[in-house]
Amino acid sequence: MDKNQIPAIGIDLGGTKILAGLVSGCRLLGEPVKVPTPKGPDKIIDTILDIIAQFQKDNIVLGVGISTAGIVDPNSGEVLGSTGNLPGWEGTALKTIIQNKTALRTVVENDANSAAYGECHAAGLGYKTCVIMVTLGTGIGGGVILQGKLYRGAHYAGGEIGHIKISMDNRRRCTCNLWDCWETYGSGRGLQATGWELLGGVSEAQTPLAAKRDRLTTQDIIDAAGSGDIIAKKALDLYHEHVAVGMVALCHSLDPDCFVISGGMSKFVDLKQLKDLLADRTLPRVSEKLEIYPSCLGEAAGLVGAGQLVLDAVAEVEQVSVAG
Amino acid sequence: MDKNQIPAIGIDLGGTKILAGLVSGCRLLGEPVKVPTPKGPDKIIDTILDIIAQFQKDNIVLGVGISTAGIVDPNSGEVLGSTGNLPGWEGTALKTIIQNKTALRTVVENDANSAAYGECHAAGLGYKTCVIMVTLGTGIGGGVILQGKLYRGAHYAGGEIGHIKISMDNRRRCTCNLWDCWETYGSGRGLQATGWELLGGVSEAQTPLAAKRDRLTTQDIIDAAGSGDIIAKKALDLYHEHVAVGMVALCHSLDPDCFVISGGMSKFVDLKQLKDLLADRTLPRVSEKLEIYPSCLGEAAGLVGAGQLVLDAVAEVEQVSVAG
Repeated sequence: MDKNQIPAIGIDLGGTKILAGLVSGCRLLGEPVKVPTPKGPDKIIDTILDIIAQFQKDNIVLGVGISTAGIVDPNSGEVLGSTGNLPGWEGTALKTIIQNKTALRTVVENDANSAAYGECHAAGLGYKTCVIMVTLGTGIGGGVILQGKLYRGAHYAGGEIGHIKISMDNRRRCTCNLWDCWETYGSGRGLQATGWELLGGVSEAQTPLAAKRDRLTTQDIIDAAGSGDIIAKKALDLYHEHVAVGMVALCHSLDPDCFVISGGMSKFVDLKQLKDLLADRTLPRVSEKLEIYPSCLGEAAGLVGAGQLVLDAVAEVEQVSVAG
Repeated sequence: MDKNQIPAIGIDLGGTKILAGLVSGCRLLGEPVKVPTPKGPDKIIDTILDIIAQFQKDNIVLGVGISTAGIVDPNSGEVLGSTGNLPGWEGTALKTIIQNKTALRTVVENDANSAAYGECHAAGLGYKTCVIMVTLGTGIGGGVILQGKLYRGAHYAGGEIGHIKISMDNRRRCTCNLWDCWETYGSGRGLQATGWELLGGVSEAQTPLAAKRDRLTTQDIIDAAGSGDIIAKKALDLYHEHVAVGMVALCHSLDPDCFVISGGMSKFVDLKQLKDLLADRTLPRVSEKLEIYPSCLGEAAGLVGAGQLVLDAVAEVEQVSVAG
């Protein structure tokens, strides 16, 4: 077997499920394994070790890459920042533990960073100056890739783009306690809040959505907009504005080649409309050649990116030793 | 003479004046030469050539670095983007012209980028992950330095931070024609606009500033604030908020180690107040270790940065040839 084709194990640890698979050439080989995330750090680690053992039974692998929620020190592989979805996970020396137990080369990376890395390289965009992934979900996450390498920032918070402040009104409070973070407008929660605001003082005679105001879901808004409901369509138009405004800030700080838009909310985003909004709200030099791509890896992005990070780390070590 | 001490000529071409000097070790040697910028590209080039000839009469130099307004392709050294202050300058193949006429190694760089490079290295911050210079003047400019290297963006617009959109109100139109760009609030013009807004409907009995409303200068506001004028103090407090909000966007896109604050308006900015505002409006991980420094090169930043860019380019070529 050609060594360049030996895969790595990619594991994506989320708050509710763990996804794992074999990764080679920035692609997932076969179907991913999916198991519910158990409660507590010890059980999570046992589950990860089980998954690795299963893959090792039938495969030679170059290493294991783990994508995890929370802020990660990529050198030590320790989980530095807490994440509400994984109680007790902060402080876990994940890389050391997995490496010691499996003797496999291990890479641990933040989930948004892993996904951005996977999307960038799977789309063949590794040669670009700057690729920004924007994940539109319940919140907004993201990752920045500069010339094919992850940009992590000075304090490993380089992709916290959901907390860009997009207004000085101090009207929407974020789950992080700051005001008017991009994700209070541009995420699924943001769209709900916009719908709720637009429905204030509106009667059921005007739109059936009014009856649902206090338990409005993003799907309600999408469905109603699809049936021509004026207020829902307004909410969806505003949602595009709200997604665009954070991207404008990114355009004028990083001047990217392209954005990759992913996440559960991305399927409701009209990329053409978004591109027109950006053309209207950025300097021509910045937007003229700017591209916006949809995700090509979907929910596998985190595991593929984490697996590819190991493969690339191994390749880099080998290049250095050949050159030396 | 130790070759490491051979200086380069640094030239900063602005809309009203040209500053030039010898640069070594990221410092200006002696006093800079200052001449008014002549009208028209041909005369500007002649003046630059004269300055270079003058310096060459008495000095051995390694090269010449030119910092110019406008967007520059650093590889070709051509001025790509127009700038209102230098009519006809767009399209000038500056690097080729100067190199051919002087046989000196020539580097041409955008003025904000040159200044950022100079400030970063003069302060010994070249080893940092991310240093962002913010120039608060009539507008807002800036430059981003990643691990000691200029970050230019995908379309050489990496430092157009003054056009980050900080509000969705569409209340202030920028000179670039976009709405609510950071510089419509956080620049000298922004402070004037804030003063004008606050003085709406205010009588001269309440503040003597009211009489000046339509021809208000930033200095009027600063002076009045110094004498305890409530409205001027409010304007200055808001100005700090307005400077902070763009920095919050930069913090959550680039997670910098530090900011360097320069430009004519920077002397009116209380860095302690600014730091407190950032601590209040960013994620703790981002702001806990964030530093804000004042400019250490002042108006020489552009010429020092441009000169140092040549010195570093020469050093890099030599390192490569030694290693090869």
